[in-house]
Amino acid sequence: MNIDMIRAANARLEGHVRRTPLLNSPFVDELAGRRVWVKPECLQHTGSFKFRGAWAALSAMNPDIRAKGVIAFSSGNHAQGVALAAKLHGVPSVIVMPADSPRLKIENTRAYGGEVVLYDRAAESREEIGARISDERNLTLIRPYDEPEVIAGQGSVGLEIAEQAAALGITKADVIVCCGGGGLTSGIALALEADAPGLRVRPAEPEGFDDVARSLRSGRIERNNRMAGSICDAIISPQPGDITFPILKRLAGPGLVISDTEALQAMAHAFNRLKVVAEPGGAAALAAALFRTDEIEGDDVIVTISGGNVDAEMFARALETLR
Amino acid sequence: MNIDMIRAANARLEGHVRRTPLLNSPFVDELAGRRVWVKPECLQHTGSFKFRGAWAALSAMNPDIRAKGVIAFSSGNHAQGVALAAKLHGVPSVIVMPADSPRLKIENTRAYGGEVVLYDRAAESREEIGARISDERNLTLIRPYDEPEVIAGQGSVGLEIAEQAAALGITKADVIVCCGGGGLTSGIALALEADAPGLRVRPAEPEGFDDVARSLRSGRIERNNRMAGSICDAIISPQPGDITFPILKRLAGPGLVISDTEALQAMAHAFNRLKVVAEPGGAAALAAALFRTDEIEGDDVIVTISGGNVDAEMFARALETLR
Repeated sequence: MNIDMIRAANARLEGHVRRTPLLNSPFVDELAGRRVWVKPECLQHTGSFKFRGAWAALSAMNPDIRAKGVIAFSSGNHAQGVALAAKLHGVPSVIVMPADSPRLKIENTRAYGGEVVLYDRAAESREEIGARISDERNLTLIRPYDEPEVIAGQGSVGLEIAEQAAALGITKADVIVCCGGGGLTSGIALALEADAPGLRVRPAEPEGFDDVARSLRSGRIERNNRMAGSICDAIISPQPGDITFPILKRLAGPGLVISDTEALQAMAHAFNRLKVVAEPGGAAALAAALFRTDEIEGDDVIVTISGGNVDAEMFARALETLR
Repeated sequence: MNIDMIRAANARLEGHVRRTPLLNSPFVDELAGRRVWVKPECLQHTGSFKFRGAWAALSAMNPDIRAKGVIAFSSGNHAQGVALAAKLHGVPSVIVMPADSPRLKIENTRAYGGEVVLYDRAAESREEIGARISDERNLTLIRPYDEPEVIAGQGSVGLEIAEQAAALGITKADVIVCCGGGGLTSGIALALEADAPGLRVRPAEPEGFDDVARSLRSGRIERNNRMAGSICDAIISPQPGDITFPILKRLAGPGLVISDTEALQAMAHAFNRLKVVAEPGGAAALAAALFRTDEIEGDDVIVTISGGNVDAEMFARALETLR
């Protein structure tokens, strides 16, 4: 896992992923007490950065193996990314999703051409289901984060941030990244190490699911006690990955932890001030910039909005925080 | 008013306005029955394309005259554009706004540094109020659309569309533009005439306020009978401008007319599928692409989302159309 893989993935992504802008608003700056620069990956194809990693993984495969198809486990954004990237490569995909995933994410995964297999989180093992289907049909598993080509694809976000920060004259800043298993966070960290060493990556997580923050503190992989109970579904994962954690340990600063309510408030500010749609987990980094101002250093902070796949009901809850 | 003015304005805008991307979604394409490309000017500074025209006008002024300050009449988006462009040029601005303008737009105009003077639409004349203040303080009036430098600034959207369409290989398509007085529509029309002559501009307006569509049909300037009664506040104007109409007559195709309900539905699809926030008037062109499919020609259609300055209450109404 190194910067050359990220640059190679970035070259394969050219013309297939959107280069997202860097947005800002004087109103957000005022709330945060510093300049806030927002990388809206909710505007990426499929509504999240996950399409980058999926495209990177699919495009790196041996064509004969790829032609048999791919399989992924995901509650939503990785599911959609893999389904669309597979469709655009003309190969089948099977996506194993918990039956309680957000409705929009299940529907979209199907609409992007994925064959969705639902399972009961409490009673069934997704690994067993996945292994059975893979064996029968010779499918290749695309892991959501602990997969070098996926990390390389997500790292393209970091290459863009490095270039955009340089154009703004920003040489020193915290870069807050919504963090589940650490694929996006470690990819951005490697890209910035090479292209913008003054920018420091910091993971943002919801309360009760701060496995990465705790792992960075203790220096070894820590697990979450539970896997449900936050609205930030996109960034709930059991623990940092075996590939992502060593990268985070070497390059990422202290983690930032936000509440579900703060995620909803950040979604409302993104609506009101930036005119983009963030999902709860996708708003975690912006929430940290707005509500953990004392834990952040410098005049500028860069945050990702990692996804925007949110049901209307949840978004209406976020809007209510503006009243 | 010619293409050279647009190119000159575009050069002055460089580094000050955002070059907005061109978004799409397979779900929107399916609804519309053709490929739909969306230019989200809601992501522009101040949340609408109006900042382009305001910057173009301010930056073209004689510095000594500019230093005395500027004045504008507007219910919202032009107000915010002029206030911020004036602030960034270091000069004062007075914005005369109807007292019943959307709350968010009044608050933002003040926050961008504009001195807001409210008036009662029914009982007072904004022209008299404006003339009195201008005379006292030697302010220069910046008209919202019937002003060559403003049209030139809005035309920069057309230069970007021409370039982005060429990159996608699109040489023939309707370009639907949310249309009030015609500043954006005529600016885009002039830019496309020069740089992408196969793209045809078509104005989109709300029912009952289709002065431009009727004027294009009759060949002379027609007025609206009323000035209130649509949620599309951003694109309600009494009649096409004396400068904009001859351009529209020469270059723009038949107008498209949508209902308030269709504008709300288009806002909901922009939320759900494109992850951007559109205001009702800003969603008129997308609504036309989705709901006037028989009146549009070709495999591709390009639409502007001209602004995203909408209160949470109105946005919640749009989300309800998804249920």
